[in-house]
Amino acid sequence: MPFTQEQIEEEQTHFANVITTFQQYAPYALNANNKRRKDFHTLPIADRELLTSLGYKDRISAVDHAIFVNAEFLNRVIASPDIFSGGGPDEDEDDPEMKGNDQDDSDDDDPGHESGPAGRGKSHSHSHSHSHGHGAHPHAHGSHDHTHDESPSGGDGSQTQQRKYRPTEHDMDKLRSTLKQLVRDWSMEGKAERDLCYEPIKEALIQHFSDIPQEERRNFRVLVPGAGLGRLAWDVAKLGFACQGNEFSHYMLLASFYMLNRTDAIHKHTIYPYVHSFSNNPNTDALLRPILIPDVLPSSLPEGADFSLVAGDFEEIYGGSDNLDEGDPSVGQWDAVLTCFFIDTAKNIVDYLRVIHRILAPGGVWINLGPLLWHWEGNTTNDPSVELTLDEVKALARKIGFKISNERTIDTTYTNNAQSMLGYVYHAAFWTATKVV
Amino acid sequence: MPFTQEQIEEEQTHFANVITTFQQYAPYALNANNKRRKDFHTLPIADRELLTSLGYKDRISAVDHAIFVNAEFLNRVIASPDIFSGGGPDEDEDDPEMKGNDQDDSDDDDPGHESGPAGRGKSHSHSHSHSHGHGAHPHAHGSHDHTHDESPSGGDGSQTQQRKYRPTEHDMDKLRSTLKQLVRDWSMEGKAERDLCYEPIKEALIQHFSDIPQEERRNFRVLVPGAGLGRLAWDVAKLGFACQGNEFSHYMLLASFYMLNRTDAIHKHTIYPYVHSFSNNPNTDALLRPILIPDVLPSSLPEGADFSLVAGDFEEIYGGSDNLDEGDPSVGQWDAVLTCFFIDTAKNIVDYLRVIHRILAPGGVWINLGPLLWHWEGNTTNDPSVELTLDEVKALARKIGFKISNERTIDTTYTNNAQSMLGYVYHAAFWTATKVV
Repeated sequence: MPFTQEQIEEEQTHFANVITTFQQYAPYALNANNKRRKDFHTLPIADRELLTSLGYKDRISAVDHAIFVNAEFLNRVIASPDIFSGGGPDEDEDDPEMKGNDQDDSDDDDPGHESGPAGRGKSHSHSHSHSHGHGAHPHAHGSHDHTHDESPSGGDGSQTQQRKYRPTEHDMDKLRSTLKQLVRDWSMEGKAERDLCYEPIKEALIQHFSDIPQEERRNFRVLVPGAGLGRLAWDVAKLGFACQGNEFSHYMLLASFYMLNRTDAIHKHTIYPYVHSFSNNPNTDALLRPILIPDVLPSSLPEGADFSLVAGDFEEIYGGSDNLDEGDPSVGQWDAVLTCFFIDTAKNIVDYLRVIHRILAPGGVWINLGPLLWHWEGNTTNDPSVELTLDEVKALARKIGFKISNERTIDTTYTNNAQSMLGYVYHAAFWTATKVV
Repeated sequence: MPFTQEQIEEEQTHFANVITTFQQYAPYALNANNKRRKDFHTLPIADRELLTSLGYKDRISAVDHAIFVNAEFLNRVIASPDIFSGGGPDEDEDDPEMKGNDQDDSDDDDPGHESGPAGRGKSHSHSHSHSHGHGAHPHAHGSHDHTHDESPSGGDGSQTQQRKYRPTEHDMDKLRSTLKQLVRDWSMEGKAERDLCYEPIKEALIQHFSDIPQEERRNFRVLVPGAGLGRLAWDVAKLGFACQGNEFSHYMLLASFYMLNRTDAIHKHTIYPYVHSFSNNPNTDALLRPILIPDVLPSSLPEGADFSLVAGDFEEIYGGSDNLDEGDPSVGQWDAVLTCFFIDTAKNIVDYLRVIHRILAPGGVWINLGPLLWHWEGNTTNDPSVELTLDEVKALARKIGFKISNERTIDTTYTNNAQSMLGYVYHAAFWTATKVV
């Protein structure tokens, strides 16, 4: 559906603000670290000498260095062609290994349509000013974050574009979460977390299609809403299925585009995702250890793999009209929907489950893993929020027309610093659900 | 030491604001719950019917009821005599079972001095406007909370006392944490957490004094800084030691005074500590289950037990002057210092460790359990913050004159809703340290 000029401008402003956040990372993070240096110099000389003998001052300097390295990486990410504006000067449309299918909310669902894995059309780029995409969402912190993005249309936003946007702590938190998300999705360090979350989902998917020969998997279309940095969707494509990820957050989209389309070697990049908090570190290594990404070559999908990422709001892109009849082309076109730490991003979970149900083919499978950290609970932006218990979500799914099986609880972390003295453990709900009505 | 008139007024304003927070709990919490009801009514009728059939509307009403019950309890807490103003009309100075020793920073250290367990003198009542006491501190949330209390001297504070203080979300968060802290310290539900945290500390204490007959324990003085709601200190007094808790937070002090001095029966009170978040609830019971407190009779300390709680800042009360010589009466007067989730409340950990070292008697023992969630990291109030790693804290302790032994990691939660789908696990550092120089 078309967007209004106002919506398009709001979107552009929001995207520009995210870019500014990337650009401002170094001064922002260095300033926070420099406060430690200033505080140090307010201490009595005896304390300074004691702390210096422990290596405290050297550690502050080492963190400065790590911030510079992070900043270099983040600047490379945003130096990539603008994925939302139809391409930049160094865009490589001919990348032979990254063929994909840009699914969108128009009638254009030609499976042969090729483009980069991240959606480029304007129709893909719209997103609300409330960036609550999975990757940068509160799961990354293990606690609620009630500060949703304010609309950028006033203040530092489109009304005053001449003035440089000043990123907030909330913006920077999302950027720091993006670094941790890279660990989760694209590093060896993240393998333990991926094994806990993605493997059960992939196993259930393979189980559901166990009578399909591997070479025919590409005829089955799998959707991953809340795809984050794309690893689960990529893994599913690697298994041979046609797989599309959908993601809302600009932070995630920028980072996943860079990883998937502009990264040509294993361990190409070094980042320091844990240098931003000095709390709960058992030792210096916990704070300062480098993480190498990626652990696999993103372009190593098999010849002819059908893999794409689509930018935008799940309900807007896949929801279509409420009045669709069963003959509508958007109905029943997916054979599987995989939701991992996603369903609690709903304002109204009824809508999410209805969309998942509607777009699944008869007998299609919905596989879910995640907690219920309702992202819009207590929001201050006057958005509606419906917050069900797990029992209620399952009861709702049954009423909407799913048969739930394979129910269990999987204990898992989420973008956890494995060496921290504080860990967040989600007792995540897992299930396989088939569309029965 | 004497306080300035300005400090006293600031303190009184801050205390009044905490009282207001207690008083405003019901309207504040009901308003947040009512937003759910309003959101519900914005939904299409089909969604409303679906959700109603799941019991969602009834659940919102049940939470209203639970909030009223909580409010009744909180109002009883603040209906107690003003513990900071020297007593109220129903204050019972003759409570025969709650004899205590008010240790303070004056020369008055007569061990026979009796008063209620909470400090009452003005010299005990001063606290900074930055309430970062253990019980209401970020450990209760498992994540950093950078919003320290702003100074109350402007705005809604003393300059405009005519205007009613309007509690912030941060204030209410501390109050809600107080309810969870009551579970931890004074309910059967909290026993698992207490067993993990308090038992190893008590065991190490008993071990250190294993050659002392139980009836002579009362000659040994144990200090518990960051005493929160007082259970660890109470347990230590129950073991027969002379024990003093120290606490800074008005929230903790009000609640502990009420529990220790105004609660005369096991399971006297019912609270609903988990009704404030609808996230990560597997079922209705996880949200709405009542907790009965206390699990023990607070007045059941043995005849002649020496137990007290002192209000105020640890460094101000026990730190004395930096230039104390060994002959000063505040030096070496404690046989044991027990710190549980406390040392990371330091702005400058060097100061904390020096004070602990100085007040310990030769051969005295410091037993520690906790993470390193540095409370002042990233503060926006321009307070200094020194944030060491665990290795550095231990190295610092050795330099200051401790011999550390019995080092291990204890995995424990902190004011965790045991039924939540999200758990915080602290890999807490434990050690026993003896004063060697």
